[in-house]
Amino acid sequence: MRTGVWLIGARGSVAATSVIGALALRAGLTDPTGCVTELPELHSPEIPGLGDLVFGGHDISSNPLAKKADTLAAAGIVPGWLVRALSDELSAVEKELRPVPEAGNQAATADLIGADLIDFQRRNDLDRVVVINVSTTEAVPEPHPAHADLGALEAELATSRTLLPPSSLFAYAAFRAGCPYVDFTPSTGARLPALDQLARRQRLPYSGHDGKTGETLVKSVLAPMFAMRNLRVRTWSGINLLGGGDGANLAEPAANAAKTASKQRVLAETLGYVPQGTTRIDYLEDIGDFKTAWDLVTFEGFLGVPMRMEFTWHGCDSALAAPLVLDLARLTAAAHRAGRSGPLSELAFFFKDPFGSEPHALAEQWRVLRGFVAGLGAGDQV
Amino acid sequence: MRTGVWLIGARGSVAATSVIGALALRAGLTDPTGCVTELPELHSPEIPGLGDLVFGGHDISSNPLAKKADTLAAAGIVPGWLVRALSDELSAVEKELRPVPEAGNQAATADLIGADLIDFQRRNDLDRVVVINVSTTEAVPEPHPAHADLGALEAELATSRTLLPPSSLFAYAAFRAGCPYVDFTPSTGARLPALDQLARRQRLPYSGHDGKTGETLVKSVLAPMFAMRNLRVRTWSGINLLGGGDGANLAEPAANAAKTASKQRVLAETLGYVPQGTTRIDYLEDIGDFKTAWDLVTFEGFLGVPMRMEFTWHGCDSALAAPLVLDLARLTAAAHRAGRSGPLSELAFFFKDPFGSEPHALAEQWRVLRGFVAGLGAGDQV
Amino acid sequence: MRTGVWLIGARGSVAATSVIGALALRAGLTDPTGCVTELPELHSPEIPGLGDLVFGGHDISSNPLAKKADTLAAAGIVPGWLVRALSDELSAVEKELRPVPEAGNQAATADLIGADLIDFQRRNDLDRVVVINVSTTEAVPEPHPAHADLGALEAELATSRTLLPPSSLFAYAAFRAGCPYVDFTPSTGARLPALDQLARRQRLPYSGHDGKTGETLVKSVLAPMFAMRNLRVRTWSGINLLGGGDGANLAEPAANAAKTASKQRVLAETLGYVPQGTTRIDYLEDIGDFKTAWDLVTFEGFLGVPMRMEFTWHGCDSALAAPLVLDLARLTAAAHRAGRSGPLSELAFFFKDPFGSEPHALAEQWRVLRGFVAGLGAGDQV
Amino acid sequence: MRTGVWLIGARGSVAATSVIGALALRAGLTDPTGCVTELPELHSPEIPGLGDLVFGGHDISSNPLAKKADTLAAAGIVPGWLVRALSDELSAVEKELRPVPEAGNQAATADLIGADLIDFQRRNDLDRVVVINVSTTEAVPEPHPAHADLGALEAELATSRTLLPPSSLFAYAAFRAGCPYVDFTPSTGARLPALDQLARRQRLPYSGHDGKTGETLVKSVLAPMFAMRNLRVRTWSGINLLGGGDGANLAEPAANAAKTASKQRVLAETLGYVPQGTTRIDYLEDIGDFKTAWDLVTFEGFLGVPMRMEFTWHGCDSALAAPLVLDLARLTAAAHRAGRSGPLSELAFFFKDPFGSEPHALAEQWRVLRGFVAGLGAGDQV
Repeated sequence: MRTGVWLIGARGSVAATSVIGALALRAGLTDPTGCVTELPELHSPEIPGLGDLVFGGHDISSNPLAKKADTLAAAGIVPGWLVRALSDELSAVEKELRPVPEAGNQAATADLIGADLIDFQRRNDLDRVVVINVSTTEAVPEPHPAHADLGALEAELATSRTLLPPSSLFAYAAFRAGCPYVDFTPSTGARLPALDQLARRQRLPYSGHDGKTGETLVKSVLAPMFAMRNLRVRTWSGINLLGGGDGANLAEPAANAAKTASKQRVLAETLGYVPQGTTRIDYLEDIGDFKTAWDLVTFEGFLGVPMRMEFTWHGCDSALAAPLVLDLARLTAAAHRAGRSGPLSELAFFFKDPFGSEPHALAEQWRVLRGFVAGLGAGDQV
Repeated sequence: MRTGVWLIGARGSVAATSVIGALALRAGLTDPTGCVTELPELHSPEIPGLGDLVFGGHDISSNPLAKKADTLAAAGIVPGWLVRALSDELSAVEKELRPVPEAGNQAATADLIGADLIDFQRRNDLDRVVVINVSTTEAVPEPHPAHADLGALEAELATSRTLLPPSSLFAYAAFRAGCPYVDFTPSTGARLPALDQLARRQRLPYSGHDGKTGETLVKSVLAPMFAMRNLRVRTWSGINLLGGGDGANLAEPAANAAKTASKQRVLAETLGYVPQGTTRIDYLEDIGDFKTAWDLVTFEGFLGVPMRMEFTWHGCDSALAAPLVLDLARLTAAAHRAGRSGPLSELAFFFKDPFGSEPHALAEQWRVLRGFVAGLGAGDQV
Repeated sequence: MRTGVWLIGARGSVAATSVIGALALRAGLTDPTGCVTELPELHSPEIPGLGDLVFGGHDISSNPLAKKADTLAAAGIVPGWLVRALSDELSAVEKELRPVPEAGNQAATADLIGADLIDFQRRNDLDRVVVINVSTTEAVPEPHPAHADLGALEAELATSRTLLPPSSLFAYAAFRAGCPYVDFTPSTGARLPALDQLARRQRLPYSGHDGKTGETLVKSVLAPMFAMRNLRVRTWSGINLLGGGDGANLAEPAANAAKTASKQRVLAETLGYVPQGTTRIDYLEDIGDFKTAWDLVTFEGFLGVPMRMEFTWHGCDSALAAPLVLDLARLTAAAHRAGRSGPLSELAFFFKDPFGSEPHALAEQWRVLRGFVAGLGAGDQV
Repeated sequence: MRTGVWLIGARGSVAATSVIGALALRAGLTDPTGCVTELPELHSPEIPGLGDLVFGGHDISSNPLAKKADTLAAAGIVPGWLVRALSDELSAVEKELRPVPEAGNQAATADLIGADLIDFQRRNDLDRVVVINVSTTEAVPEPHPAHADLGALEAELATSRTLLPPSSLFAYAAFRAGCPYVDFTPSTGARLPALDQLARRQRLPYSGHDGKTGETLVKSVLAPMFAMRNLRVRTWSGINLLGGGDGANLAEPAANAAKTASKQRVLAETLGYVPQGTTRIDYLEDIGDFKTAWDLVTFEGFLGVPMRMEFTWHGCDSALAAPLVLDLARLTAAAHRAGRSGPLSELAFFFKDPFGSEPHALAEQWRVLRGFVAGLGAGDQV
């Protein structure tokens, strides 16, 4: 079960932390804290091991992975001694990173991306390669009729340079190259009918969107608590202060809109109504990768008595995301091996804005995930 | 299914809020916010309706219920207009309240308590009476060999005035009079082997302990979140600032110890280890019935990165407890009707320190509760 | 020293709370909590007493003051029994309220406003009338050359209907009628060179802007703390969640911009540099007049160690503003009596965005205020 | 103005951070963030420069300073590169550290301490040596009549081994050796009439107690804010969670009592009344030197409206204390040079529990401190 993990945005903080962590785990230098798939409840021989993962990826940046690792160490996101101990392994991964190709039209660009994926798979003798988007969040794209039909899409791609947003072009190229696709960001990715047609035709699974790492994770347990106790949430307002690359990008109004919409979905679907309030995201360069989120919830109890709760979450986004990236690579690879195709709604546990109509309550998502893992052995092994 | 609800501590804030709320619901003057049994998921014809409840109780205080209601209205716990609208109904309940009897020994006192219960049941033509302890928290009692054996207990009670703490004496008297018993407080109640023997002999169910209304409720969803994400909780510390009668009593070190032990159980049982930290309770007269709890959780993520979360909970204890008291009366009555006897571990959803080895994660408790309600119809109706 | 207090926005929450409070204090029904001028340190025979104040005002609404008082009582901002006890006094004030006049041009409108002021003064035999703007916040107006010169302004007003924003038109009318003017809002008010010329010509004092009631009050003591300890503030971000009329208005982007600029001034002027971060204002209808503000401050200590502080402020805006409105009426009246004209920079203690270059540290502003009060007796009594 | 700084507890976190910081400042490797005496407002040629300080000290531990520095670097309290850059300078300080002497009686022990001080002064050709207690907090000692009279004290010391707590024995020895004394802890130190007599006889100044570094610092600006606005504080409760050596010691009930009493003084003296509530200190080993304090303040505004404020302070105690230790060494040395003797009440700015009746409001203390510095030149230079 040698499994390739191809990271879109491979030189970014999340990708680099994922790679460093996987290498450290393989070398026995750290514990699998934060890795959900390592919990006893999710143990399965159908899931590739951490030691089976081989990393590569695309990035528009050319900043060396070793330098990125030093930056992460200086920011307290990974231990410095670990970076020093893994320098050889990081050099090996560096050789598997490629610049993002660009050709005269998106069809040709997709061919170049696909060629990189196929080369990676052959060179490393991999059973399969999972493509995971961990690049920065895109704006919501303009709708286009060709997004809804695979034939029309393929015809248009031959001449257009902008029809698909980058995340969707990578999904298209991945599917064409026989690779499952995971979108860890709120970007469009595989979320277009034409791409779903392609994935099913190729018998490929995909999952997303938007890794659930902080404030929304907390919402996904607190909102069901209010619902189960029949307490009426009147308002739920939050602010996220974050720096780092993702923070800077989210300061763009369009990307911000994509993200905040994704963050509110859990309330409507868990409570059955939409309380007043919004979730804001503000960029604070100085705060770096350690995000602070503050939420205020006002609610009404018996006989209308007003009450309130606040929480502050101070988490390191890359350190929260990285182990989930490894989990998703392994689980999506296992789903592919088990013959699954189309969206993996059972992985809703990991996402703010999951596919399908799975429940948004974390505990329910956990049960669904356990069922998914338990059922892996029953599929057609590929 | 006319169901009596006999409240120990019937003139206290929780009892009075429960009574006012039930009367208001029956009169269509309020919504059942906070009433778990009114959620569609728990609807069952086996459960007595809110309109089937008839209230009575014991209290050492003789402060009129109407005066208590005014005090609650002044404190913002119940609406003043509601108290005025319900004055006749409150007078009717007033007539069902009795002072706590006291005889020369605990056996004789228990007989007097039992006589009050039986009179109440006959006078109101009730199918059954559920006794619920909502009086202030007792200190943990001195252990005694007779606590472990019903025969020895009955022999000793004939001469002792102190063998059983009050909550257990009420449980004893309730069981002798054929009444199920619920302990909403952390006091000993039915938690003695001799009383369990009595309950089973009488074919009576009981439930407890310590209603889960605030900080522990939040813990019971946050601790599973950390566990499901394989994040390691390093410390969990909290402080509860509360006034009101319960607050004053909890300022007593012995009662405080009983309560804080009850509050920490959820962490050990959900996480599988005990993080550093303690839960403190401080009395602040001025804060009244609106409790403020603050918790700090420090945890470790991938590669050992330290992170933290804080929450503040500002809730009205009586308003949070009262609808649960109604839920427990109705569910315990239904269990009795269905022929259940012994501890009702399926009601763990409601308690900080539940009977049995049910999970402490709220979502799991919710599933167990739904199963309990769904199974009610299958029992032997009595 | 019979002193008129003419409120622009007289039927709003701040105005109504000011009036109810002043009437309650005169009747001995409450304590002067929140009234700065009642502190022993500011006692002076030069300042009119609370009993000397007579209220009137303009409002575009015609909602009766008694009805507004009931609304305030229902929201917990004023005690209901107080409103009932003061019904006669409130009816008397009701008779002194007028709709906002409107004529064909702003010169004529100003004449009508002035006539209302002069009538009020004569009818009540008042030594002077202080005009105070407590209406909702305006957008920042378009600049116009006539704002800078009194002659040009008066010429233009004869034909224009929009040259001055309402707050400035009231200031103009007040000055023409011989009345000092206070702006409790961030609106333009007297902050135009032409109006300053008019005030000085008329020998009238004025003060403003934007009452310092919550988050900014806290900033004005915390920012100096960091400065005095030579700790370097890296970021200071805040969010204000508020409902009520002011909240709804501040949801307008232009008014919001005026307000947030006013809120950040204290940091730059106290610290000597501008930390990263912004102050947001979000409207939450359900939260009513009780504002919740949350601020995060990250700072750097010795050897660059990063540290942080958060605070949450949960205050009732009208109850915080109302006693300051009374203070400002009394102090501005005393300044007028003492012969002062032009901006009263010594009243910076009360404002987020004060006139002049007075310090923004609250303790320094307090010293300046004490000096101002101490010096009142030395002026030319008028 | 070569000035010796003799640290009691020289191998502890505060002392080591002070030494590393002073060496780094002298070497131009860091900025004086956190050093109050480096602010322009306190600049004075009468105060010894940071480059004039020479360090030595006593400690019962023999853990090398270099090793302590590594521990501090690992905990994020000082930068690791700084420790490496300063290794030679740290070795030089290591040579000036001594074990705490112990003889058969306290008079003889004091002689040995004094001999260490005099040796240090001669060996380094110092104008004076300031002794600063930064060791862990002691319990409040048993009162003894000899504490009140220098003659009686000296007579008793010749035979007793326990008459004085360690902090007071060091103060006694310092005064006998002609050294000013500063107590940065809440321990007794020079706070005995007999020691005051000795200091005055020797013409030596002293200062203390209990460095104001975190929660109490914030209290000292917030409490005056409430007072200046005539808002009535109803309750003020806090909890401090801290690890490190000081935290472990404060878990001892007696030391905890000494500390919490010191922390509440600011409220009573600033507000003029004592609000309900207490300040708790809990030990959390895992939290290390980064303390988290949470405070809840409930207050009453105009017409009795209840409001509230919370704050969380997350600070590194050693990094907050260390620059103040340097400030106190320099200011106390300057006071000695200026001929001052007895308690330096003007240094209240630095302490939770200062000498004398100086105001507890930080801004007032700042003004007093500025006056003190400005007046230094006028004394008798020694």
